[in-house]
Amino acid sequence: MLYFRNDYGSGAHPAVLEALCATNDVLTPGYGTDPYCHQAAETVRTLCQSPQAAVHFLAGGTQVNKTAIYAFLRPYEAAISAGSGHICVHEAGAVEQDGHKIIALPSHDGKLTPGMLRAAMAGPLNEHTVLPRLAYISNTTELGTVYSGEELRNLGACCRELGLYLYCDGARLGSAMDAGGSCFPDYAAACDAFTIGGTKNGLLFGEALVIVNPALQPGFRNCMKQQGAMLAKGRLLGVQFQTVLQDGLYLRLASHANAQAGRLAAGLAELGIPLLAPAESNQVFPILPDAAVERLRKSAAFEVERKMDGGHTCIRFVTAWHTTPEDVDALLALLKGTGA
Amino acid sequence: MLYFRNDYGSGAHPAVLEALCATNDVLTPGYGTDPYCHQAAETVRTLCQSPQAAVHFLAGGTQVNKTAIYAFLRPYEAAISAGSGHICVHEAGAVEQDGHKIIALPSHDGKLTPGMLRAAMAGPLNEHTVLPRLAYISNTTELGTVYSGEELRNLGACCRELGLYLYCDGARLGSAMDAGGSCFPDYAAACDAFTIGGTKNGLLFGEALVIVNPALQPGFRNCMKQQGAMLAKGRLLGVQFQTVLQDGLYLRLASHANAQAGRLAAGLAELGIPLLAPAESNQVFPILPDAAVERLRKSAAFEVERKMDGGHTCIRFVTAWHTTPEDVDALLALLKGTGA
Amino acid sequence: MLYFRNDYGSGAHPAVLEALCATNDVLTPGYGTDPYCHQAAETVRTLCQSPQAAVHFLAGGTQVNKTAIYAFLRPYEAAISAGSGHICVHEAGAVEQDGHKIIALPSHDGKLTPGMLRAAMAGPLNEHTVLPRLAYISNTTELGTVYSGEELRNLGACCRELGLYLYCDGARLGSAMDAGGSCFPDYAAACDAFTIGGTKNGLLFGEALVIVNPALQPGFRNCMKQQGAMLAKGRLLGVQFQTVLQDGLYLRLASHANAQAGRLAAGLAELGIPLLAPAESNQVFPILPDAAVERLRKSAAFEVERKMDGGHTCIRFVTAWHTTPEDVDALLALLKGTGA
Amino acid sequence: MLYFRNDYGSGAHPAVLEALCATNDVLTPGYGTDPYCHQAAETVRTLCQSPQAAVHFLAGGTQVNKTAIYAFLRPYEAAISAGSGHICVHEAGAVEQDGHKIIALPSHDGKLTPGMLRAAMAGPLNEHTVLPRLAYISNTTELGTVYSGEELRNLGACCRELGLYLYCDGARLGSAMDAGGSCFPDYAAACDAFTIGGTKNGLLFGEALVIVNPALQPGFRNCMKQQGAMLAKGRLLGVQFQTVLQDGLYLRLASHANAQAGRLAAGLAELGIPLLAPAESNQVFPILPDAAVERLRKSAAFEVERKMDGGHTCIRFVTAWHTTPEDVDALLALLKGTGA
Repeated sequence: MLYFRNDYGSGAHPAVLEALCATNDVLTPGYGTDPYCHQAAETVRTLCQSPQAAVHFLAGGTQVNKTAIYAFLRPYEAAISAGSGHICVHEAGAVEQDGHKIIALPSHDGKLTPGMLRAAMAGPLNEHTVLPRLAYISNTTELGTVYSGEELRNLGACCRELGLYLYCDGARLGSAMDAGGSCFPDYAAACDAFTIGGTKNGLLFGEALVIVNPALQPGFRNCMKQQGAMLAKGRLLGVQFQTVLQDGLYLRLASHANAQAGRLAAGLAELGIPLLAPAESNQVFPILPDAAVERLRKSAAFEVERKMDGGHTCIRFVTAWHTTPEDVDALLALLKGTGA
Repeated sequence: MLYFRNDYGSGAHPAVLEALCATNDVLTPGYGTDPYCHQAAETVRTLCQSPQAAVHFLAGGTQVNKTAIYAFLRPYEAAISAGSGHICVHEAGAVEQDGHKIIALPSHDGKLTPGMLRAAMAGPLNEHTVLPRLAYISNTTELGTVYSGEELRNLGACCRELGLYLYCDGARLGSAMDAGGSCFPDYAAACDAFTIGGTKNGLLFGEALVIVNPALQPGFRNCMKQQGAMLAKGRLLGVQFQTVLQDGLYLRLASHANAQAGRLAAGLAELGIPLLAPAESNQVFPILPDAAVERLRKSAAFEVERKMDGGHTCIRFVTAWHTTPEDVDALLALLKGTGA
Repeated sequence: MLYFRNDYGSGAHPAVLEALCATNDVLTPGYGTDPYCHQAAETVRTLCQSPQAAVHFLAGGTQVNKTAIYAFLRPYEAAISAGSGHICVHEAGAVEQDGHKIIALPSHDGKLTPGMLRAAMAGPLNEHTVLPRLAYISNTTELGTVYSGEELRNLGACCRELGLYLYCDGARLGSAMDAGGSCFPDYAAACDAFTIGGTKNGLLFGEALVIVNPALQPGFRNCMKQQGAMLAKGRLLGVQFQTVLQDGLYLRLASHANAQAGRLAAGLAELGIPLLAPAESNQVFPILPDAAVERLRKSAAFEVERKMDGGHTCIRFVTAWHTTPEDVDALLALLKGTGA
Repeated sequence: MLYFRNDYGSGAHPAVLEALCATNDVLTPGYGTDPYCHQAAETVRTLCQSPQAAVHFLAGGTQVNKTAIYAFLRPYEAAISAGSGHICVHEAGAVEQDGHKIIALPSHDGKLTPGMLRAAMAGPLNEHTVLPRLAYISNTTELGTVYSGEELRNLGACCRELGLYLYCDGARLGSAMDAGGSCFPDYAAACDAFTIGGTKNGLLFGEALVIVNPALQPGFRNCMKQQGAMLAKGRLLGVQFQTVLQDGLYLRLASHANAQAGRLAAGLAELGIPLLAPAESNQVFPILPDAAVERLRKSAAFEVERKMDGGHTCIRFVTAWHTTPEDVDALLALLKGTGA
């Protein structure tokens, strides 16, 4: 069975596993107060050229989005997101569970633009409405599209003008940086806070939250603990992030995944298979006849994105750091064989 | 530095780490729907003689307590706990954050009794008060004391009579079973739900939640996801729990920790050092002169429980699966040397 | 200054005030357990031909919507609403504050249809999404449009088929019944719960909540108290509702308001002024040149609904039980004069 | 039936009702933005000698406590209260419903002292605990005891020293001022925020919230709306408060109630009936034989406070602005007759 279901289907990259084994017997304090977390946080600050940033390590993506928005907003403030945003559709109402409305803006490519934010803030906003206070973006987006460094800077400037915090969900930040030509300092400059996703790029689990805006830093660990998001053996997160960030492995893994997706997209184009959105990163969304999708299920693992009109279905292929060129070739051969 | 700070200071037991390495390259579906979680859940049901139990794997103790109470209670219902209960004092208000009051009952030994529950339910209870609906116990307790199997059964019967759910926080369940002569089926019989703690007994992280009462089972995974408590690579939890539960390793590790604490308590008694509570499990609470505590800090890691009157301090020593008899002897020698 | 700003600009209808004065000195128990509330609840049950309905009296519209949805839904369940629904835009995130997402469906006339509900329930719905469980409608809608009795029955049948509760916000229920030919029993038959709005139809304040579905009745008063929605002198609500409901005054007041709005709409048509939505009840939404709106401000009180393209603005006129034909004529004369 | 059940058993004082009738036909904007509310707020600021205070009018006591604490605290912060505090026991978990723990301190007389606050803040407080940030007191207390002006000042100074906000629930503030010799400026000087209770002192309903601390003022109306606590016809609150505050009626009504309670307490002393707490204000808590309580039920309305040991029950008598000396004499005669 060819695996293109997602980028968190295996365990960890061997280097990560080795580092966990090598440090296993060291005894440390708990809850992220250990030397490994301190070192990894310092590495993040250096990479981001943001010496004052607060860096926290959490276990998962929904957890970090939920906890950050909970910590950053006052009770009556709301988040703005593209309608396809992860917090809008795939987190089971986690943000609302903490009391905050998400204002979902329609977006054909999963991205927010300054114009969309300006329109959302044009009002009327008053004490009978929620007050939008944070713009949530994900890079890469849920449709595999990518914000460039310039787009990030423009969004950041717009948010500052409008009095919005800019928060970037970087569950696939490595892929976004590789695809969009952005770098860590771009995020530190544009965003009030952002995450560096580990789960989908070689770690067993883990997301690093970088809080650049000093006003948002106080009390965050209290919020983490209250949300059940403070891991007893926090060191596990420090060790893993240090491993992938210290020497560029994080970006190499993402670049590999992107390259495989690029090969896949090229092959799909040769086969004349249309895509739902441009294949910019490690997610590819081909639209296939329903019958072809059914045949494909027997030999490949993938997810269905949505039913389309006219007997077609859009499915999602995801490549990962462990996807091989042979995997891609085999998938393309299958697609050719199914007459897709 | 001798390490008696807690039982989650190291990584994992070697067998757990080996299992994670051995399964690392297998590609599975996410979010706990993989074969490893299914197998571990089945192992739990078999050990508990509870074939209809729902078993979920979560990353941490606060997370599982919070999510369970959130899922089990209606909005206006409350939990009852001993005042020293973990949810009362060490979870940063996690239960209240989800809207539920905790009714804290004073308890000298950290335990609840049927009499205490009956008094709490004697009222007046009406629409102006919260309605107590769940009794929270921890076994072992935060003071290291232990409920026996019989005490559990009596509490369970009392809770059924009073219309309370009985929930047992088993962050140190192995230690409690070893010390109190209880077994998995005792918990399944007495409790509506309970946890099997992994973090403090040899896993990298992980708590298994066993929901015995069928009325409390629906919707739990939705609550998990909403709470940010559903790990993408849920398999990591399945693999780890299967490793320690399949052949009794879980109990052997706990038994070892208890034995070391027993040796430590015996040594303290010889030295004439009083304890805050009887040393029944793997936590020991000696009361020392403040100056002795200060001297001890230089050579041993431990936590301060509380300041006592008269220039004394109660501290906490915790033993773990990796504590050696030599560690205990060295600590006792230190204590002797400090003139404690 | 002509007053067309809203239908809650004055105090109460004289009969309501008289009843409050007449009962002022009677001493009763508090919190809605008094004879006046019991009598008014019985009147509601009789009018609705729903002898088993639970009837509660609350002070305001946001309060009753918030408390009802809070009481009816499990934590991970969501409400569906037209995008223009009061709970979506004018309640400051009150529903989200209690943890529930609102799924906003675009609707040109402020109404939900069975087709819209079916599409929303077509999924994918799973443990990563919220689960829609309640359809919120308002009758009349925020655009002044009206559901007929038949539309209500069709929605009710559709909701039962889809496993949704149907909740009708009847802040202007009298106006809806007068305009749409529906009657109290229609609501009891179609809805799981609905409100009878008093604030906008002659009371000082007050909304009656009718919970028809027995499964939704337990625990409601606990939720009321917890939400701060249980008035100490609940009797004030019982006295007022009994006054307007006992002899049809409620409908006569609404009918009067509708009639004045009808005269206003006819006059606007004569003047060739377009409307945002058909004028079916006591709210009328003319679209005027910006300059005309500015001139009108000097002599009439109204609210701005929204800016339109091309130098036009949509404003809202609301008639009430106390609006006179002379008020309407004077407003029309003003509009003629402003060259609107 | 003699009525000593509570101080909210009747409607309003005649002057309040007259004012509502006299202003009934005036058309105003809604939600507390009307001239009556502005005037009443100004009256409050003048009485309190606090020209910068923000003044809000809400409908009920639980509502104002809940909304204020919700608005004032960050998510992980907690309130401290005497164990008998209204927010602890009679608000159905309203504060916890918004996410905040209440730390309940045992208190024999329902009052907090600086010493109790210092002990509560002595820790350990860290990211695993909630952070106490607000001290809740009620004056008069739930036991009828009273803080003097000096006690208020001392508490205020202690709170500033400890970094706590001081919040005074003044549901019976008039009674407290009359009994304890405190005045409005004392509250403005000592507290960060406090309420002036109307419901229990002559209004139909209503509590005025005075937010003295400027840091706590922003966003409060958003919180009110979100909590369903913004009355559409907010003017009703402005009219009522202006009526009782403009010429001292508020204090005269409270003084009358206190005087009747004083006569009642003197009579009870003559009869040798012990009290649970000193009778300092308008609540009196006699302890009677159970049989006497049962006999008394036939002729008098009162509430049971709690069962005592040895066949006795503590009940509560409350006097109000409308309690007559004849009512008190009749009650005393009854008590004499029942052999209490």
